[in-house]
Amino acid sequence: MSTHLEKQSSAMQNIGRLLIKCSDKPGIVSAVSTFLLNHRANIVESSQYSTDPEGGTFYLRIEFHSEDLLDQKEAIEKDFRKIADEHDMEYKFSYAAELKRAAIFVSKEPYCMMELLWEWQNGDLDAEIAVVVSNHEDSREMVEALGIPFHYIPANKDIRQEVEQKQIKLMEEYKVDVLILARYMQILTPDFVSHFPNQIINIHHSFLPAFIGARPYERAFGRGVKLIGATSHYVTNDLDEGPIIEQDIERVDHRDDTVQLKKIGRKIERRVLARAVKWHIEDRIIVEDNKTIVFH
Amino acid sequence: MSTHLEKQSSAMQNIGRLLIKCSDKPGIVSAVSTFLLNHRANIVESSQYSTDPEGGTFYLRIEFHSEDLLDQKEAIEKDFRKIADEHDMEYKFSYAAELKRAAIFVSKEPYCMMELLWEWQNGDLDAEIAVVVSNHEDSREMVEALGIPFHYIPANKDIRQEVEQKQIKLMEEYKVDVLILARYMQILTPDFVSHFPNQIINIHHSFLPAFIGARPYERAFGRGVKLIGATSHYVTNDLDEGPIIEQDIERVDHRDDTVQLKKIGRKIERRVLARAVKWHIEDRIIVEDNKTIVFH
Amino acid sequence: MSTHLEKQSSAMQNIGRLLIKCSDKPGIVSAVSTFLLNHRANIVESSQYSTDPEGGTFYLRIEFHSEDLLDQKEAIEKDFRKIADEHDMEYKFSYAAELKRAAIFVSKEPYCMMELLWEWQNGDLDAEIAVVVSNHEDSREMVEALGIPFHYIPANKDIRQEVEQKQIKLMEEYKVDVLILARYMQILTPDFVSHFPNQIINIHHSFLPAFIGARPYERAFGRGVKLIGATSHYVTNDLDEGPIIEQDIERVDHRDDTVQLKKIGRKIERRVLARAVKWHIEDRIIVEDNKTIVFH
Amino acid sequence: MSTHLEKQSSAMQNIGRLLIKCSDKPGIVSAVSTFLLNHRANIVESSQYSTDPEGGTFYLRIEFHSEDLLDQKEAIEKDFRKIADEHDMEYKFSYAAELKRAAIFVSKEPYCMMELLWEWQNGDLDAEIAVVVSNHEDSREMVEALGIPFHYIPANKDIRQEVEQKQIKLMEEYKVDVLILARYMQILTPDFVSHFPNQIINIHHSFLPAFIGARPYERAFGRGVKLIGATSHYVTNDLDEGPIIEQDIERVDHRDDTVQLKKIGRKIERRVLARAVKWHIEDRIIVEDNKTIVFH
Repeated sequence: MSTHLEKQSSAMQNIGRLLIKCSDKPGIVSAVSTFLLNHRANIVESSQYSTDPEGGTFYLRIEFHSEDLLDQKEAIEKDFRKIADEHDMEYKFSYAAELKRAAIFVSKEPYCMMELLWEWQNGDLDAEIAVVVSNHEDSREMVEALGIPFHYIPANKDIRQEVEQKQIKLMEEYKVDVLILARYMQILTPDFVSHFPNQIINIHHSFLPAFIGARPYERAFGRGVKLIGATSHYVTNDLDEGPIIEQDIERVDHRDDTVQLKKIGRKIERRVLARAVKWHIEDRIIVEDNKTIVFH
Repeated sequence: MSTHLEKQSSAMQNIGRLLIKCSDKPGIVSAVSTFLLNHRANIVESSQYSTDPEGGTFYLRIEFHSEDLLDQKEAIEKDFRKIADEHDMEYKFSYAAELKRAAIFVSKEPYCMMELLWEWQNGDLDAEIAVVVSNHEDSREMVEALGIPFHYIPANKDIRQEVEQKQIKLMEEYKVDVLILARYMQILTPDFVSHFPNQIINIHHSFLPAFIGARPYERAFGRGVKLIGATSHYVTNDLDEGPIIEQDIERVDHRDDTVQLKKIGRKIERRVLARAVKWHIEDRIIVEDNKTIVFH
Repeated sequence: MSTHLEKQSSAMQNIGRLLIKCSDKPGIVSAVSTFLLNHRANIVESSQYSTDPEGGTFYLRIEFHSEDLLDQKEAIEKDFRKIADEHDMEYKFSYAAELKRAAIFVSKEPYCMMELLWEWQNGDLDAEIAVVVSNHEDSREMVEALGIPFHYIPANKDIRQEVEQKQIKLMEEYKVDVLILARYMQILTPDFVSHFPNQIINIHHSFLPAFIGARPYERAFGRGVKLIGATSHYVTNDLDEGPIIEQDIERVDHRDDTVQLKKIGRKIERRVLARAVKWHIEDRIIVEDNKTIVFH
Repeated sequence: MSTHLEKQSSAMQNIGRLLIKCSDKPGIVSAVSTFLLNHRANIVESSQYSTDPEGGTFYLRIEFHSEDLLDQKEAIEKDFRKIADEHDMEYKFSYAAELKRAAIFVSKEPYCMMELLWEWQNGDLDAEIAVVVSNHEDSREMVEALGIPFHYIPANKDIRQEVEQKQIKLMEEYKVDVLILARYMQILTPDFVSHFPNQIINIHHSFLPAFIGARPYERAFGRGVKLIGATSHYVTNDLDEGPIIEQDIERVDHRDDTVQLKKIGRKIERRVLARAVKWHIEDRIIVEDNKTIVFH
């Protein structure tokens, strides 16, 4: 672990996060906040959302601070089960001190990966970059220069299964929590995707659902749109149809040809993916059906 | 003509506009600018675009000022034919003093129409609002209060042909140059559209090509997008497929239900349509195939 | 009360809001949420902010739903005093059903006022527009057409005190909760301002703190900025120095002269003021020193 | 010269640019376009602006293409003098093939420099990065890794004159055309600035004229603004008062402390400086008094 990350973990060492989903009814906030109080945890951030106060679904994210959290967390989690059972909650605890381990998948174009590595170097991305996987050798040098393992796994549709088995094994070896497709241009099989539910984040180079599929910039040019965009989403088995995490756009005009659109688009893709990854890392996202609730 | 428009016309009285399209080759700007100089016209704004300097198509918009322009325009137009023939140009002269005559078509929801009327009242829209046509009586009072004729023509799919014949006759009576569909919720037939090529401006309540067709806000909500938008385009016979003039978006989040999306969307629609109409009125738009060149 | 507002109040009839400020320490959320649970109130929205989890100040806004709220509110408020005392809270209850009463102050230019009246007509502004006050007669007709009382009070610096006494009396007569300066171009005295602490909302036509004071568009033009903006803020005795509620900008360029900047600026002013008023009306704003906490 | 730049120059080899300023009167566009035609140069882009068609100042930027431009340019420039004299023009020819030579000045924080180097590596910045100058050693490694000379010149206010003399000498040695202050935190003397009129581009971390001077993020936090920005401008002898080239902003809220504002601000600074440098490099900027005309 590099020095800047050690420092971060230390500052964040006693921050815990609790994500909850359950049927909406009176008493949930009271139960959870009283539980945390009784466990000497102070709520530092709290966000909630209900699809409908009467009979809807309730979502809650709480960030709390507690002295010696890592020592206490086992007890906290054990005690919480009772409340969770009472309210029939789905829930997840996570701890800022236990950095998520990310794998970055990249093909030839490195710009999205570089944005992430840059954020990481600046200390703006509280994760471990455990490994970079690529079907090209191009990025090896810049990745290894940062002390990050780089694995070259050539890929094409004929050897897809074999390739994915190697990749799955690698993810296990590196204990990866989240896979970031930073312009990784290979299609993933349903089998691969099912290994990592809501754990694979992709960047698509259009404002979805416009221009689903291949060559979105060419098609944006063909249609004569006045805005181009990018979309970051979780990967499901429906191509470009997974839950959208973040989108953004830039204005273009008739003078912008496809080359120009790609240049402008790169800037959008970089920032959209970086935001999506940051929110995932900070456990700010709840996936519900095919949508995301993002607690900023 | 209302007072504020008289004043505007007077200020703009001697402004002419020339739109040109031809094959790109050396000498066009020289020929046109020398022609204008020889006719004592001073270029006050000039914009050009070429699809490809070698063998592409060249587009030019010139705004010029000339004393006593309205007296001279006949001579100018006659003399220009020679240059146009030499360079095989398509071209169009227009004159700021000859205000375009607009018809606004509206159904129940008045907000897009109101934005246009407001701009017009403020003197920000240099056009005559010749007539408002609606298939509902709702807007009559506010339209007539501004001294604008209001025609109620009930419409439904069974009487479409009859309705459109009335509308076409009305457009002729009022000498209308441009039809603005300000949330007019009836489908127009190919026959009607063919009467007004590149003269019908629509506002669609999505960032096209996403959510083509009906109920875009409902579908945007269903898809969980993080941006919603609106698109103004010329109407062709392919529904929502005409040349895009302008688009814009606003950020939304998981808390925004369909009602909320519509409220946010109304603000986007208002400003997108107002911009598109303004650019059309000022002859800033050239349609080429299914795209627009907009000279801001 | 107009029909559309009756309907709104009915839908919102059982929504209460609670704003709290106190020293941050463990147990506040637990105490408040348990209190609400015991009073059969369901939390539908909750936002919090702490300047520092250790020894900082804690701010909380809760929106809750309770059957027959208006009948119970007295009991709720009475019982809450105990909790408030324990935690040394400043707090305020408000009720969506009890619409805030707004006065709009306007001088010659009506566009900001019109935006508010439009929002109000659309049912997007949950307030009573109790009265419009102006030092010009220009807006009388359009205000009275909407059934809103209009009071013409001529004003200039020589009769300031007398004018303000009339205005204060009028505010009392109309039981006004919030004063909106929608381009009201008279300076208010400290005495007047002190009558309405954090109750007067102004729109300033620059992105403060740039171009404090008079003629901001002229000065923006002189400085050659590439963005112009508008700022809505609470009025204090330091001119244009009060707590900022909302700001926004638009891009401009060298071609935009002062007239053009004003046109663009009007659109910014309209939307910035409308947002600020909406947030105030919904009790989303807490003023702390010279800043605002806005819970969106 | 690196490979990617060779390729660019080749593609752009025959592109020339002509910037003109003169009194506005009829005939200028005609004279210039006819001149270019006679010299077998095809206009590929043309932008103009007049402060006032009657008696104002006229500005023109033309991008033209001509076979074997570099062989002909001497003749073109010589012949143009006659036209320039006739119309009393200030003017400047430049050639895309003759890449501008840039020096980047940086202190400790490298992010603005890195954005420029990144753009340059991607082939998005058509300039030579001739040299990097810093008063810290921090950036040496990453600069030299790209094959760019790095000069460490320690600086403080006591040795300012000596330091600047070294820097001026270095600029001469490296034949530098433009100096980019990419977060260079030393004040430059009037003497230094006068060596490089309209050639020094700075990035200031606020939306000027708000927060002129030191510690703008701290002051933005103190004032409670809802937007923060950055401004790129030419350096003159009035601190932060030079002609503004570009500005942009991001939305912030009460939760963003100074550390957070700086993080958000870094992204704004990067893109604002990159755009300003690009426009300068492409000769899109004319400075007039204390303003810029930017022909996008």
